Amino acid sequence: MLQVLALDEARALLLRKIKKANKKTDRLALPDALGRILAEDVKANDDLPSFNRSAVDGFAVSARDTFGASAALPALLRLAGEVKMGERAELSLNADECAAVWTGGELPHGADAMVMLEDAETLPGGLVAVESPAAPGRHIVFRGDDGKEGETLLCASTRLSAREIGLLAAFGVTQIEVRRRPRVHILSTGDELIDPAETPQNAQIRDCNGPMLTAACEQAGADARFLGRVPDDEQTLLNEMRSAAENCDLLLLSGGSSAGAKDAAVRCLSSLGEVFFHGLALKPGKPTLAGEIDEMPVIGLPGHPAAAYLVFHAMVRPLIFALSGAMLQERTTKAALTEAVPSNHGREELLLVRLDGEQAIPIHAKSGLVSPMTQADGYVRIPRETEGLPKGARVEVILFD
Amino acid sequence: MLQVLALDEARALLLRKIKKANKKTDRLALPDALGRILAEDVKANDDLPSFNRSAVDGFAVSARDTFGASAALPALLRLAGEVKMGERAELSLNADECAAVWTGGELPHGADAMVMLEDAETLPGGLVAVESPAAPGRHIVFRGDDGKEGETLLCASTRLSAREIGLLAAFGVTQIEVRRRPRVHILSTGDELIDPAETPQNAQIRDCNGPMLTAACEQAGADARFLGRVPDDEQTLLNEMRSAAENCDLLLLSGGSSAGAKDAAVRCLSSLGEVFFHGLALKPGKPTLAGEIDEMPVIGLPGHPAAAYLVFHAMVRPLIFALSGAMLQERTTKAALTEAVPSNHGREELLLVRLDGEQAIPIHAKSGLVSPMTQADGYVRIPRETEGLPKGARVEVILFD
Repeated sequence: MLQVLALDEARALLLRKIKKANKKTDRLALPDALGRILAEDVKANDDLPSFNRSAVDGFAVSARDTFGASAALPALLRLAGEVKMGERAELSLNADECAAVWTGGELPHGADAMVMLEDAETLPGGLVAVESPAAPGRHIVFRGDDGKEGETLLCASTRLSAREIGLLAAFGVTQIEVRRRPRVHILSTGDELIDPAETPQNAQIRDCNGPMLTAACEQAGADARFLGRVPDDEQTLLNEMRSAAENCDLLLLSGGSSAGAKDAAVRCLSSLGEVFFHGLALKPGKPTLAGEIDEMPVIGLPGHPAAAYLVFHAMVRPLIFALSGAMLQERTTKAALTEAVPSNHGREELLLVRLDGEQAIPIHAKSGLVSPMTQADGYVRIPRETEGLPKGARVEVILFD
Repeated sequence: MLQVLALDEARALLLRKIKKANKKTDRLALPDALGRILAEDVKANDDLPSFNRSAVDGFAVSARDTFGASAALPALLRLAGEVKMGERAELSLNADECAAVWTGGELPHGADAMVMLEDAETLPGGLVAVESPAAPGRHIVFRGDDGKEGETLLCASTRLSAREIGLLAAFGVTQIEVRRRPRVHILSTGDELIDPAETPQNAQIRDCNGPMLTAACEQAGADARFLGRVPDDEQTLLNEMRSAAENCDLLLLSGGSSAGAKDAAVRCLSSLGEVFFHGLALKPGKPTLAGEIDEMPVIGLPGHPAAAYLVFHAMVRPLIFALSGAMLQERTTKAALTEAVPSNHGREELLLVRLDGEQAIPIHAKSGLVSPMTQADGYVRIPRETEGLPKGARVEVILFD
């Protein structure tokens, strides 16, 4: 008899079993790396900024020359010149001198503060009147303020958003090593399945899980390839699984893992590799299967689309993040149940909910339907052996992508 | 004198001004449509399922034949046959008969409930013992339960996630009209800027805003093209802006909109089209500029990277969603400030914060730095004329992507 596991046990087991995580990397130009995962820490090659820089448009001053300045008695400074953008500040300030510097321009020697344009008045005769004292360091970005040579800018496993792209560009890091996206192969199983573009004959059913799971893997950061549909014939499935297991980091089977005549998948997995568990103590999601072929994880998801998607989100998605070398990103929000949820014995339940402000509305749907998924914003995990949740109970909703 | 607007006014003005929203569509195969925005409502061409279907592995029965069944006195039914997956249920049940049906299989005539395999016992002589009564409709998905012919499955403006891909596949919708992604052109301006791959000479600065804003537009769903860097020369900028304004839905300028010598951008915009406002009553983000050229919006963002990114997120991102025909998705979370925030007069402030559980830690950073952005998870909007927020105040954090 094969072991039935709780969701958390199953997830932990699969994460432990990743012995052969894909450590391959891609070296990418920065603009192509959006959304990818850093393969290594990135350190600063130089100080940034590489010079003391003004953060405003205005006048570079020696702060001491402005001490005591007021509207009644402004500090009068001689305008010694202007620092051109992008060029070295050639001039050096003497006492009671200032220089015009624009945002991003270099501070001249002898200056230790900036006075903003709007806080000064240019007078005839090359003089500038400063009406309030400037504190040393005011409006200046000093060399290395953004990062010093050798400092770690970003750690391995960071997912690169636009902000990290900006930081790397600022430091001149324009080629980076990112983790190669894990390759996931997806096989749908079932005699009744046809391509969604075909018209069902008799009691055929369009295979919606294939495209859905392929898209879900892509959303989770995988390089997902749908390999097609396999009938329930055990020998055919064995051959297809053997071939699908090559050159990938995770093999997903859809359907084919329920009890009855359709446990061909578990027999095939058992003959090609090892079965970790067959069955989750989860509602929906009982007919879930997992194991490995040559240290490569294989997961068989339930055939019911909502069950397949929920188990995908709760168990496969974290695995894809781990295979990607990324920290799991799971968005959650707190909400109040709009109705009581009955007590729950024997197995954990994943309850689809729709959010309306801070309320979570349970979605009651027959198993086997597809549409409830698109009405849901996420799900609530209801632990096994729960004495029911009252209306208004605050629950944590795990949000879909 | 050009008008200075508050953030909300500026955002509302820009959204009102979208007269010429890109209504072009792309016809895509379903797997290519992940993340795209539906251009039109999608209706069901047929009932789904197209036949009454079992949701479990088990026995199709007439519920009335099981009424009163118990462990002590099971209902004994004759197994009349098996419904093959994907084929029509040819048989028709007579009284006290049942048929084996697998999950997804068609219900035979005369059956109105399913008994799960585990709730029945197969006896010698072709008999099946059912130990508890089945309610009519139990474990059955009826024709049209997932959607009836002509029903709206998904509305225009829906963003397609894996779940919507699954739903459309189930209904056989494999070619769909999605909104064409808005084309955004990005120009960086500033004499001091160099390509991030180059080594700065003198006081040159690597242009990090160009790659950052390009990536941010992509993340927001745009087709973003970085057109390069333009020096502060007004005639050059005029020519570049005129050319950049062609064949796009939004033109973003980075830098070039601060006061002082660098308001070339506003003069160029004024001569090429119309200026809506020059200056936001926002900290950071004051030197923000907006207008239009031939009804195509043009926005000049501040040169400071964090200011540029914050104004992008608060004002440009909503515009890109609107140009995409999508509802704005803005993720927020409630958190408690870990320190007091001083009173705020004159202009609204966007405060970068890092989240630690349910706490929001303000990030104090000099303007002009890049690294604080990558330490932040989002920002808090602090309204103008606020008497300061005490430590522990619950604030809404707008989360970055």
